[in-house]
Amino acid sequence: MSEEQGLTVKKSGNFSEWYTQVISKAELADIRYNVKGFLVHRPWSVKIMKNMYSLLERELEAKGHEPVWFPSVIPESFFEKESEHAEGFKAEVFWITEGGSDGKKFEERLALRPTSETAMYTMFALWIQGWKDLPMKMYQSCQVWRYEGKATRPFIRGREFFWIEAHDVFATEREALAQVKEDMETTENIVHKMFCLPFLFLVRPKHDTFAGAVNTFAADSVMPDGKIIQLPSTHMLGQNFSKAFDIKFLDENEKKTHAWQTCYGPAVWRIFGAVVAMHGDDKGLVIPPAISAIDAVIVPIMFEKDRKEVSEKCEAVKKSLEKVGLRATIDARDNYTPGWKYNYWELKGAPVRIEIGPRDVKAKKVVLVRRDTGEKTSVDEKNAAEEVRKILEGTQKSIMEKADGFFQKNIRDASHFNEMKKLLDDKGGLIRTNWCDKQSCADDIKEKAQADIRGTLFGKTEKIFNKCVVCGKEAKSVVYVGRAY
Amino acid sequence: MSEEQGLTVKKSGNFSEWYTQVISKAELADIRYNVKGFLVHRPWSVKIMKNMYSLLERELEAKGHEPVWFPSVIPESFFEKESEHAEGFKAEVFWITEGGSDGKKFEERLALRPTSETAMYTMFALWIQGWKDLPMKMYQSCQVWRYEGKATRPFIRGREFFWIEAHDVFATEREALAQVKEDMETTENIVHKMFCLPFLFLVRPKHDTFAGAVNTFAADSVMPDGKIIQLPSTHMLGQNFSKAFDIKFLDENEKKTHAWQTCYGPAVWRIFGAVVAMHGDDKGLVIPPAISAIDAVIVPIMFEKDRKEVSEKCEAVKKSLEKVGLRATIDARDNYTPGWKYNYWELKGAPVRIEIGPRDVKAKKVVLVRRDTGEKTSVDEKNAAEEVRKILEGTQKSIMEKADGFFQKNIRDASHFNEMKKLLDDKGGLIRTNWCDKQSCADDIKEKAQADIRGTLFGKTEKIFNKCVVCGKEAKSVVYVGRAY
Repeated sequence: MSEEQGLTVKKSGNFSEWYTQVISKAELADIRYNVKGFLVHRPWSVKIMKNMYSLLERELEAKGHEPVWFPSVIPESFFEKESEHAEGFKAEVFWITEGGSDGKKFEERLALRPTSETAMYTMFALWIQGWKDLPMKMYQSCQVWRYEGKATRPFIRGREFFWIEAHDVFATEREALAQVKEDMETTENIVHKMFCLPFLFLVRPKHDTFAGAVNTFAADSVMPDGKIIQLPSTHMLGQNFSKAFDIKFLDENEKKTHAWQTCYGPAVWRIFGAVVAMHGDDKGLVIPPAISAIDAVIVPIMFEKDRKEVSEKCEAVKKSLEKVGLRATIDARDNYTPGWKYNYWELKGAPVRIEIGPRDVKAKKVVLVRRDTGEKTSVDEKNAAEEVRKILEGTQKSIMEKADGFFQKNIRDASHFNEMKKLLDDKGGLIRTNWCDKQSCADDIKEKAQADIRGTLFGKTEKIFNKCVVCGKEAKSVVYVGRAY
Repeated sequence: MSEEQGLTVKKSGNFSEWYTQVISKAELADIRYNVKGFLVHRPWSVKIMKNMYSLLERELEAKGHEPVWFPSVIPESFFEKESEHAEGFKAEVFWITEGGSDGKKFEERLALRPTSETAMYTMFALWIQGWKDLPMKMYQSCQVWRYEGKATRPFIRGREFFWIEAHDVFATEREALAQVKEDMETTENIVHKMFCLPFLFLVRPKHDTFAGAVNTFAADSVMPDGKIIQLPSTHMLGQNFSKAFDIKFLDENEKKTHAWQTCYGPAVWRIFGAVVAMHGDDKGLVIPPAISAIDAVIVPIMFEKDRKEVSEKCEAVKKSLEKVGLRATIDARDNYTPGWKYNYWELKGAPVRIEIGPRDVKAKKVVLVRRDTGEKTSVDEKNAAEEVRKILEGTQKSIMEKADGFFQKNIRDASHFNEMKKLLDDKGGLIRTNWCDKQSCADDIKEKAQADIRGTLFGKTEKIFNKCVVCGKEAKSVVYVGRAY
């Protein structure tokens, strides 16, 4: 492999440079568009993200959500209806102020949506009249824009990114709280089981709650560099927005009541970044078969004299795979050697490579190479599809187990501040410790350990095992601390 | 049916009001968002448009296109690189001029993309180096924004709409011209065969060519009110953009050459509007089964004493349909009568209704009602899935035949100006006539008949049958004239 083709750093040696190289060399995205934080997404990443969208959408629809497409612009007056929300987001808004060629300003500025609460809830107020209209559960797959001040990074932090936002309305607080649990299950079923990203579902401390929400619940994972990444989060909005937007319904006793709301935001774009970062290796991408763009690539090995028989067999094997629903492609490019193609498809993370040469034709065999382990086997051609399927199942399982193992190793206990800081400095990860619930101690962690209190475990009260890690006074809860992207 | 639930006008009596009512009452979209030209898309339209997207994307990918996602903002300097293009679009651009809360202006304005040539071709220049990189065929499914001056109308003309844009680059002019033909085939395979919208594929006259293109080819259809609607169009860009954006490649003789380009834009949002307008009837939507959100709705008819047996049978029938890949839903809502539900699902255009009552349970029968014809049959429950499939096939076929018949009737010949104008005033449609190719005569048609020359038939030179319809001098071509949306 030429140096230009492959990765020139090891993932364990320089993770940051490895990530930059894999984004570019596996042709996931191009950063040369020259507008800060706006990425050009190339086919290989789009295909995988489309699969991720499909799985999330199917799960959301199975759980009663319906798809909608809302305008991507929000008039400033809608945007400001919920004051905490407006306060929290206004520094991050791109404003459209004029249209056409005469340079005339609009009477009212339009926000390019940074999130859609204020767009959607304006309409929800019109759609919801009686208790029969509830629950109402909707989602949209879309992009959002944030005038982000922090450094941007492909698929991690951008000024334009792709996500799903689900917005749910209920008659009672009890149902809204049950939705938080359902969202956690959705995250488990899809983000963990399909995308192979383990997480803790945490209740964020009050000072780190979504602007306008009562409570924020978020799935935190640990990246290979020890940094924390927030995957989907759910916000319990209580009646804050329903009061600001006047979302009321006539209940069964003919009484007008404000509705209860939640929203859930799996950021597909960022989760894709986590998939790339978490599972990749020194050869390039490793993609869980559940979301891979293809299942297998077939590489012919031939001289001119073998061309006909090898090509025919490649086609036959491709057909046998497609017959059972597997997606295969033949890399028949003449201008590249088989070796170059092996490296190319390893870089791209094709889960299985099938090598077919003249000797295989004669022996009625094919060679299968498994991407994540490099394991190579020769199997009877008539069993190719079945064997590929077994490899895919094994790959999905072992990518998940590897990620789970890494995650478990990176949740560690600390009782004292210096111990916590040392663990963070050494390897990062999530540090389990005790907190008195005072903001001043959270501020100290921020200032003196450059870390955040990510929250308490959702749905489980953990037993306090020491005094507050900062002030040494009585602790009120067991919390997880980490340094985040 | 209460007046509020159903349509209160006939399609043939007042098409415009019928269209407005069906958009609202079938819950396709809500126009009350209060930003001109920006529509709120409700679940029923989104589900159908998602199916339309899938079919178009599959066809484009089968023909070698790869998906990409480009930034939705374009710096003003990129936008202005191709001068005719900039000239043609600058009156239609929404400009982002500031971000955040300090009101500080950006150094360079960002256009919200009205179309993506200038975004994509900036990157194509980096990606294309040698002949091996060609052809390059890419598409993106996205929304675009146009600061539209004309009156907006849901799904027909808006300031934000959803489409696909495919952008292709070739080494030779010959290949680019072949792409125009391939795009016409894509339109035939999907827009005609699946969406049941007939069209003529026309070469637009020079004065009506896309800004920056050498030639524009477009599929024109006729709406029920006789107005012409442009469905997908393909633009032959020649080397205009490749020169402006410096898209060059080293050919097989090591010579630097500018590439040849085409682009193709099926506007899913507008095509959906044409589907609604074309196929609907006085009861509401009629949707081709190939893109319908569901195949069949099951309506239980029961009193409390029959509830268990009827509900169980509904579930069993639903399962038997799903087993063969049909998508069925049970309308089990307690608060509505069966009659109300019949009207509801007719309004929504569910292709088949399955009625199940206690007598059907006893007789092991189900009643099937076909949406487009109203035909009602009682069939053995064990054949339900098979019979539903037959009805769906019949429906798809007859929706297409009906639309084709209407379209054929609305293409008429005229030799003289007054005859042409009378036909346009009477019923609209496409008028086939003769033209001398002079701009002044086209202007006269515009001014005196309020109509446009839509172009000549693609791929076929039609025999001139009279003098120019305007000036009476020698005609150069047979053209189609119509009044468009």
